[in-house]
Amino acid sequence: MAIITITGAGMMGSALCWPLADNGHTVRLVGTPLDGEIIAALRRDGRHPKLQRALPEGVAFYDHTQLAEALEGAEMVASGVSSFGVEWFASAAGPHLPSGAPVIAVTKGLEDLPDGTLLTLPEATARRLGAPVSLNAIGGPCIAHELAARRQTSVVFTGADPAVLERLRAAFATPYYHIWTSTDVTGVEVCAALKNAYALGVGLAVGMMERAGPDGLANMYNPQAALFAQSCYEMRCLLEITGGGAENAAWLPGPGDLYVTVFGGRTVRLGRLLGQGRSFAEARRILAGETLESVEIATRVARALPKLAARGLARLEDFPLLLHIDRIINHAAEVKIPWEQFFARHR
Amino acid sequence: MAIITITGAGMMGSALCWPLADNGHTVRLVGTPLDGEIIAALRRDGRHPKLQRALPEGVAFYDHTQLAEALEGAEMVASGVSSFGVEWFASAAGPHLPSGAPVIAVTKGLEDLPDGTLLTLPEATARRLGAPVSLNAIGGPCIAHELAARRQTSVVFTGADPAVLERLRAAFATPYYHIWTSTDVTGVEVCAALKNAYALGVGLAVGMMERAGPDGLANMYNPQAALFAQSCYEMRCLLEITGGGAENAAWLPGPGDLYVTVFGGRTVRLGRLLGQGRSFAEARRILAGETLESVEIATRVARALPKLAARGLARLEDFPLLLHIDRIINHAAEVKIPWEQFFARHR
Repeated sequence: MAIITITGAGMMGSALCWPLADNGHTVRLVGTPLDGEIIAALRRDGRHPKLQRALPEGVAFYDHTQLAEALEGAEMVASGVSSFGVEWFASAAGPHLPSGAPVIAVTKGLEDLPDGTLLTLPEATARRLGAPVSLNAIGGPCIAHELAARRQTSVVFTGADPAVLERLRAAFATPYYHIWTSTDVTGVEVCAALKNAYALGVGLAVGMMERAGPDGLANMYNPQAALFAQSCYEMRCLLEITGGGAENAAWLPGPGDLYVTVFGGRTVRLGRLLGQGRSFAEARRILAGETLESVEIATRVARALPKLAARGLARLEDFPLLLHIDRIINHAAEVKIPWEQFFARHR
Repeated sequence: MAIITITGAGMMGSALCWPLADNGHTVRLVGTPLDGEIIAALRRDGRHPKLQRALPEGVAFYDHTQLAEALEGAEMVASGVSSFGVEWFASAAGPHLPSGAPVIAVTKGLEDLPDGTLLTLPEATARRLGAPVSLNAIGGPCIAHELAARRQTSVVFTGADPAVLERLRAAFATPYYHIWTSTDVTGVEVCAALKNAYALGVGLAVGMMERAGPDGLANMYNPQAALFAQSCYEMRCLLEITGGGAENAAWLPGPGDLYVTVFGGRTVRLGRLLGQGRSFAEARRILAGETLESVEIATRVARALPKLAARGLARLEDFPLLLHIDRIINHAAEVKIPWEQFFARHR
């Protein structure tokens, strides 16, 4: 059994307490500067205010001022911050990471460099940390509420070193938390990041359905399915550009993660509002306070693509859905799905 | 404008009347011997009893005794029969197919030969017909009710001859019925057939959720997503065995068609009943009268796989979900998802 520290007490970071506590580890949960209320609530009665359930017995709670203490002697570190907390993780936690302790992050995202190059978060975090740390990540379909309820969950741990991945797998795996490992960090992480943007895309059709209303026995799954398929297609194309394995568009990281995000994620709500005909500004007001990683990832990839195309590394016609999402959220365009531009390589 | 005859007046065959009529074709809809009541109802008031809406103006209705007349002079033929009607199509319609008229079928299915070889329906139908007929098929996500309501729909027409496919596309495509073409008949048809079996698989988790009930804010999308991902994975593996293109597991035919079938299809109801803990015999009684293509396709592929494995063409460990479905429906096994056996190549 090991000492394992989780930085970030949001829903996903906190949900990792269940498999770790069930495996008998010493679990320390540290809040970020934004998690003050969560840690206070946990100290009061052990109940997580967002997950709305009591954390497993024995988990110790730390606020962000106690970060150094919480990391001392940790044998593994899980990072549960959102993509907006990566900066904080690197600067605040970085200096206190115990030597040799691997980090595994639930954070999803990509960062774009000025020349359009897309970096996965483990790569971006490594650049920020400077010091050599084993950075790994979790991809695949996992809604925090369900992991906290010990529902059957299947994910992918990805990182450069198979031995480290195996050590992490052994620490986290339980009869309900099933873990596959992959050294294709780019492949897994590109899908993990993109699924947020594409769940917004599928959500557009859900909103369009809500606006149009039923017509006899007809619902609106045909449009959703085409958007889901185009999402898998565009993931495939971005995997090719970034050097990730194409097979990731056809298992847990691609369609698996997109499926769960369409049904259980927060991102889809933004897509629904836009599909109903609301402007992005209006939708943003309605969702005030929500972390909208979908907006960030769509914006970044849409910013990178023309640069990659100019360098001969991407074809813009492969990404009509992502570019349409970008026009809606960043250029006040109306929702008008470019169906005929889909699946360019299959024309 | 052309004369186009649709054989089979079930939901999917009849739904094709909308794009064809909207394009100004002369449309003839012929019932099979099982469609007597549908044709009678259509003659009475033009309303399709299963689609529960009036067919477009101008469609002419024929019963099965008028098949020869309905096919006379047809420039294209659409086959709307289920996989159980293929035999009828070949023997009854075959002799009357006008020379040079291409056939395009909505039927999904695979047939297994004694040595385990799997044939797509166009291949199996060609063997039955004997005479040279251009046999094409429609894959991809399309619920008949939605096409009949002119909802945005995206599908794939597949066949051996690109020129024929282009002719068919031009005849069927409308601003709401988007068509891509593919000469990879095996790739498209393997996915089209398998999605019925795998929608049953994903349905198992839906039923398990209904049985378990909610737990706090936790629903049960993590298990569904893992089953969805494993379905895409097994499709990939079967594409490899049959020689279909792997990319079909990541666009309209694979995840797109599976998505629509999970939400709008009839197959998922059987999976739900089994997931709730009912025996197959019981579920079958509840669904009496329903066409259960999922059972047929799962049974056939599960029967073929050990033979293919013995010939060194398949690895049984790639198909734990399909083989579990087969055990449930054909060997009275209880539902016990083999999570740890999933994604064998990613272990």
